[in-house]
This record gives sequence, structure tokens and C-alpha cells, in this order.
Amino acid sequence: MSLISVGTMAFDSIETPFGKAEKIIGGSATYIAYSAVNFVTPVKQISIIGYDFPEEEMEELKKRGVWLDGVQRVPDKKSFFWSGRYHADMNSRDTLVTELNVLADFDPSIPENYQGTEFLMLGNLHPKIQLNVIQELKQRPKLIAMDTMNYWMETAMSELKITLRYVDALIINDAEARQLTGLYSLVKAAQAIFRMGPKYLVIKKGEHGALLFHENEVFFAPALPLEEVFDPTGAGDTFAGGFMGYLASTDDISFENMKRAIIAGSALASFCVEKFGPTRLKEISREDIDARITEFKNLVNFEIELN
Amino acid sequence: MSLISVGTMAFDSIETPFGKAEKIIGGSATYIAYSAVNFVTPVKQISIIGYDFPEEEMEELKKRGVWLDGVQRVPDKKSFFWSGRYHADMNSRDTLVTELNVLADFDPSIPENYQGTEFLMLGNLHPKIQLNVIQELKQRPKLIAMDTMNYWMETAMSELKITLRYVDALIINDAEARQLTGLYSLVKAAQAIFRMGPKYLVIKKGEHGALLFHENEVFFAPALPLEEVFDPTGAGDTFAGGFMGYLASTDDISFENMKRAIIAGSALASFCVEKFGPTRLKEISREDIDARITEFKNLVNFEIELN
Repeated sequence: MSLISVGTMAFDSIETPFGKAEKIIGGSATYIAYSAVNFVTPVKQISIIGYDFPEEEMEELKKRGVWLDGVQRVPDKKSFFWSGRYHADMNSRDTLVTELNVLADFDPSIPENYQGTEFLMLGNLHPKIQLNVIQELKQRPKLIAMDTMNYWMETAMSELKITLRYVDALIINDAEARQLTGLYSLVKAAQAIFRMGPKYLVIKKGEHGALLFHENEVFFAPALPLEEVFDPTGAGDTFAGGFMGYLASTDDISFENMKRAIIAGSALASFCVEKFGPTRLKEISREDIDARITEFKNLVNFEIELN
Repeated sequence: MSLISVGTMAFDSIETPFGKAEKIIGGSATYIAYSAVNFVTPVKQISIIGYDFPEEEMEELKKRGVWLDGVQRVPDKKSFFWSGRYHADMNSRDTLVTELNVLADFDPSIPENYQGTEFLMLGNLHPKIQLNVIQELKQRPKLIAMDTMNYWMETAMSELKITLRYVDALIINDAEARQLTGLYSLVKAAQAIFRMGPKYLVIKKGEHGALLFHENEVFFAPALPLEEVFDPTGAGDTFAGGFMGYLASTDDISFENMKRAIIAGSALASFCVEKFGPTRLKEISREDIDARITEFKNLVNFEIELN
């Protein structure tokens, strides 16, 4: 099986209480790809970059099994750029600069060798672009997952609601689930989101873990208690990449297997936050990931005799 | 084995987005007792009440195995009264009224038939009163746990730090752990709290579950995702009562058994929030609790094959 990853490949400048990183590699599709290749290859990338996106990064991705046929390079424009500053709690941040650059013209087209791919991860983008990708696929993937954000709920809610009808799994954070539905209870928000289209809902709660909802079932994966969260940028995309990469590698979309995929995604995300940008994701081996999954198991495992 | 429970027995007036409850039964020791008796009896209560605390409530507690020899009734004063209003998120609240009444004179003395008790739960009170109780026990309990709050950190930090030297387990929420240590990372806060005296730290995170720290080990118990949290009042005390009641009933303070106790406490707390005051705690059976513990197991249980 294989996975299509759609999203940005970009530069970020990040300030955290631990330091600053200027113009480092970022973008949702970048994190998704670096995460997913730990479980499945090829990951077929769809994105747009400017003249300034480094060729070495493209080589690095290729080496790891990422196809780049669907990454369009615009020779006379810069790559998408985002700059943000995290607050002391690392859960909230201020956006300092957003330069769309090439992203303003992003109209993804699907290379012929991407057709027939079974798993599709739509990173956070305008919901119209996300829908376009779905509609350009000649064969519907086995599982379509998408991320989105509050910005699209405020500026493109009607387009977002249309796109939601076509996806199987929505992966958002708790504040976004509440904003999308107007409901505070996440259990009720899940039921409301199921009525919008998705059959699966993953709610990311950052340091508080993640919830998976499907019909009347629910699964909870904790976040690993870490000494320090160094840089949360990309953790959500890394989670999504690990989740979809694991599902694609096992070709099993049962609820039981989705639980495993949530743990796989959580393990990857726990590495991501240890260093600036995707740095840490490039260092880890499958053994590191397995060791971390074992830590998750130990964190929540208990045996109790009932009467 | 048995358990001493120390704290308030009081009246609360509560406003939540779901309604109002005027002058209902409350108090930390009330919740601790109603919760703990599901696992262990007797629960030996130490508290102070005024002329207005209803005799029927005393009978109800007695019927369930709560000893009341240590509950002092002051005939010419009112019971402690607290009134608060919860915000829409149910995680934060404003205190509207605090009337100390009898609590101003609380100087607990230990009845002779309480001596030799193996487990001690010190509900949230002035740390000097908590220390007095410890010092009046002729034989040190096997496990001493205490709750406290931000108010004592602001007004009696030096007394609090002295009391902490004498307890085995501290049970507080995440904001309190951060305030007590000045550290944002809960992993680092745990290590700092161990240096203050306690060997076990339970951090309650409300709807985000609870963490148990001991030496370099950590265990995480989720909160059950609920459709509605009706009234969170007393949930923390109910958790503590279930935790200590379970430990006392099993007479096992290994880390493995503490994990089970955390789950038991979480299960009881998940009932507490379903109705105003301790109402729901009076309705449930051991079968209800076991069914809920099974829900917790299913919520976090996953099986994954590693390479």
C-alpha cells in the first residue's frame, strides 16, 4: 500500500522559551512525509515550493522513499513562510508573519503515477484545494483523512462543510472540534461531526493526548509526559503522518488497528517536539519508535481483578 | 485495614451552566467518605459541623460504614459554607461566598478508637491542622496522603512545606503542582516535589485524566469522555477517597497497586460529576463501579506487535 500526502513545504521561523530558529524547514506535508516513511513507502508528496527550497532537502526526502513528482517548483517565487512565537505553556502561540508566496497559486495536479493510491492524507490547506485533490483521483482511496484549522472555519466554513462530506477521518484539535460544532462536550462534538460526513474523528489535545471516536466507540492515547517540549511546531502533522503511514503499511482500517495507528502517531509526535523543526524525525530509527511505543504501553497499562 | 478521612463536612451552593443547587451537602471529608466506603470500611471521619448539618446525613454515612466519633458538632454555630459558579468549560470557577463558621475553630482531636489506623487521607485544610492530625496519631500510618490548594501556597507556604515532609503521597491538580514548584514541566515538578518529602505524587488534570509519579516511574489514567459534566464539585475529593479506599482495602502500596487505585479513584470521580453534590455517589453499586473500570480498560487498551 502507499500514501499520498498533500500540504505545504515551507520555511518557519520559530521562537520558544528555549531559543530561536530562523528560516528552518517546515510545512505540513514535510512533517507528514518524514513521519509516514517510518512505516510505509512510497509517500507520494503533493505540494508547491519556490526557488529557495533547498535541493538537499528534496534529496533527503527522496532517499527516504518520498516521491516528489507532485511537488511543483515555481522558479521566480519564494516558498511559503510562517513565523511564530510560543508562550511559556507551549500550548498557545502568536503568529508573527505569514507570507503565502507560492501558496497563493497552489492548484495541485495529480501525477499519473499517483493514481490508484489507497491512502490519502490532506494536510491543512484551503478546503477547496483539499476537495480538488479528492476529485482529481480517478479511484477513491480506501481512506481519506484531513486536517483543518480555525482559520478556515472563520473564512471558508461553507467550503469546509462540503469537503467534509467526502472524507472518512477528520484530524483536528479540541478547540477546533468545539469551534466546528459549537459544542463544548467532545463526545457530543464527535456525534455532530459524524453527521457532517466523517466516520472517524481524531481529536488531538497536545500534552493531554488524543481521542479517537468512531460510531459509539472511543479510544484514548495519552501524550508521553516529557521533561521539556522544545518545539511543538509540526507535532500535529507528524501525528497525522504516523497515523496514516501506519494504516497504509498494515492496510487495515478496523477500529482495533486505528488504535495502534493513534499510538504510532503519538510516538512520532513525541519525538518531533524534542528538537526544532523536523530535525529529530530525521535521526530516529524504527528501534527508537518501538521503544517509545513500549513506553506508551507501560504508561497506561494496568491489571485489575473485578469482583 | 481501615482509613481515616480528615476534612470538611459542609454546605455548598453551586451554579453550573446546567442549573443551580442551593445549600446542598458538601465538604471534602464528605466526598472522601462516600467514595472510600465503596472499597473499605470503616472510614473513620474527622471533621467539624454546626447545628445545621442534618442528622439524616450523619445516619446515611453511619449506615455505609463511616465512623463519626471524630466529628465534632458545635451547637451554636453554622457549618462551613461555600458557594461557587462554574464557567462554561467546567474547568474553572469563581468562588462567590466562603463562610468559615465552625471551621474557624477546627482543632481536631483523634478518638482513641481511631488510633492504629493504617491509612490516612488528609483533605484540603490549613497545613497546620493537617500536621496536627499526623502528630496526634500514636502509630504512624502505613500511608499518609494529603490534598492542598493554591490558597495555602499563597498564605501558608512555610507551614505547607513542613507538613509535606511528613506525608507519603501528595494529591493535587496540575496548576497547583506548577505553583508549588515554579516549574511548568510536570515531570520536573514531580522531581521537585519528591525533594520536599512525598514519595508519590498524583496530579489530577480534570477532564484530561490523572498522572501518578513515583521515583522515575509514571502512570497515566485518562478521564472518561463524558457527554456532560454536570457538576465537578467534589470530584477531586471523590478521586482521593476512591484512591485511598482502594489502597486500604487491598493493603498493598506497591506501584502496581497504586495504578489500580488511580483507576478506582477515576471511576468514582466519573460518577460524582454526573449529578449535583454527592447524590450520584449514594446511588451506585459495586457492579456499577466494576462496569466503569472496564470502560477505562477499554478506553486505553491496545495491542501492538513490535518488530
